[in-house]
Amino acid sequence: MAAGPSSKSLADVLRDRADVATAALDRILTAPDEPSRDLYEAMRYMVLGGGKKLRPALVLMSAEACGGTVEQALPAACAVEMIHTYSLIHDDLPAMDNDDLRHGRPSCHKAFSEALAILAGDGLLTEAFAVLASQVADAARAKRLIAELASAAGAVGMVGGQVADLKAERERLSDERLLEVIHRRKTARMIEASAVMGAISVGAGEHFERSLREYGVHLGLAFQIADDVLDAESSTEVLGKTAGKDAAAGKLTYVKCFGVDAARKRARGEADRAVDALSVFGHAGDWLRDLARFVVQRSH
Amino acid sequence: MAAGPSSKSLADVLRDRADVATAALDRILTAPDEPSRDLYEAMRYMVLGGGKKLRPALVLMSAEACGGTVEQALPAACAVEMIHTYSLIHDDLPAMDNDDLRHGRPSCHKAFSEALAILAGDGLLTEAFAVLASQVADAARAKRLIAELASAAGAVGMVGGQVADLKAERERLSDERLLEVIHRRKTARMIEASAVMGAISVGAGEHFERSLREYGVHLGLAFQIADDVLDAESSTEVLGKTAGKDAAAGKLTYVKCFGVDAARKRARGEADRAVDALSVFGHAGDWLRDLARFVVQRSH
Repeated sequence: MAAGPSSKSLADVLRDRADVATAALDRILTAPDEPSRDLYEAMRYMVLGGGKKLRPALVLMSAEACGGTVEQALPAACAVEMIHTYSLIHDDLPAMDNDDLRHGRPSCHKAFSEALAILAGDGLLTEAFAVLASQVADAARAKRLIAELASAAGAVGMVGGQVADLKAERERLSDERLLEVIHRRKTARMIEASAVMGAISVGAGEHFERSLREYGVHLGLAFQIADDVLDAESSTEVLGKTAGKDAAAGKLTYVKCFGVDAARKRARGEADRAVDALSVFGHAGDWLRDLARFVVQRSH
Repeated sequence: MAAGPSSKSLADVLRDRADVATAALDRILTAPDEPSRDLYEAMRYMVLGGGKKLRPALVLMSAEACGGTVEQALPAACAVEMIHTYSLIHDDLPAMDNDDLRHGRPSCHKAFSEALAILAGDGLLTEAFAVLASQVADAARAKRLIAELASAAGAVGMVGGQVADLKAERERLSDERLLEVIHRRKTARMIEASAVMGAISVGAGEHFERSLREYGVHLGLAFQIADDVLDAESSTEVLGKTAGKDAAAGKLTYVKCFGVDAARKRARGEADRAVDALSVFGHAGDWLRDLARFVVQRSH
């Protein structure tokens, strides 16, 4: 269905898009043979075992805002979620954040083994690109989707943001510019890519794509700053992951740099800028606008 | 230059192609900014710090055998080596093979940290796809190259082979069919992909591509079986990695299943089948034939 005003709430729309993506991921992550069963089990455990599926929903909603269909954007939605999930698996490893809990249950290396968690992450990362290369029929779109995703997930994207995050944590750095780099690369870049990949998937015009990129960056920053606030203020039960661990680990966060009140204000400011970026969409951008407001109000 | 008979030896050709690939990897792995410097340093350490560069040389030589140029196949050569190197970094991790030595020097997690080694592997894996998506101009070829590489490296390829390998090791399995799965997926599939990606890079005809796929599978099996023999018979000094570790770890190898003599014979048989697959190439396939004979005779 097209995005726009209806009797549905944003929560309904998000749930519906998340369900569509989850069903597609379930199909993609079916072990094709017996020797690959263990690996698929570990990959499925994390991809299908919870999580809000916010990024694939964003891919689909962006595609719809451009006038395209959910079906056209499904490969991109799945690929984005597979990359996001691999990053959670590797982040939780003992050598990284050493977190035993994810989505309210044992993290991948606790449920399986550290070796299988490393390989499940590697598998998801690799298969994400396989999905785009095999399921997007148009070669030019596939190439652009892969370039966008690899850039967002790679050395000056998510992985690079993780390295900067670890460095800041280890060296107890408290530098505003470094914080900006970490937030942009570790989180915002993949959310930006999600919005842009929705546009690419449906062959949207340049002006739609540019608007969604701008929207995605600010949505991503709003999301990450709101996440910092939640980590500082919420409980492990509500989050489904260990709360308060940023401060405990000495992580560089907006809350650490500026305090909770300033962080909240900054998150709302970023959400406003995300909304402002959508003017070319008219009413077709309403759900995306609601989403920007939602990410700074959510409780988990 | 075109492949074919000349006064050069295979060793010269391999060294030359390896040097060309190494120079290209050096350019690709230049940190674009300050915050990504640590990550690029760790990625460069492993990619540029040794190794035979056999896979990229194979990509380039396959492209040349099809009548194409080294330049056309360079992105594929680099991507293949980046994937191979990430797999070495992750394999060496404490939770995996726990090996302190690689290419005659400290493995990545010993030289840096376990966290940075995990992320350097993730970075190389992701950037390999970025290279193909950004440096291969023809969209249809880029899409096919990415599909081939992701399939070879993924859940029913290299990563899947690793999982099967760990399972066989942990459960002390000694099953001939499982051994075949491990060898095909863990090693042969990426060598097959290297040969095929040379063909795709230059837009070679279907018959060339099919021959190179057949060649690559058997070359890969010959290579892995020869590797099993070397691990059992050579020294750590010669190999530049820990020798004898397969037996120590209880790994499922051809040597374990059939003994050294039978393994040697089987490796030679696979090399012969690789050579036989090249009949469509005439003299243009001579270096590839020499390569198949070489991999079963090498001492490291």
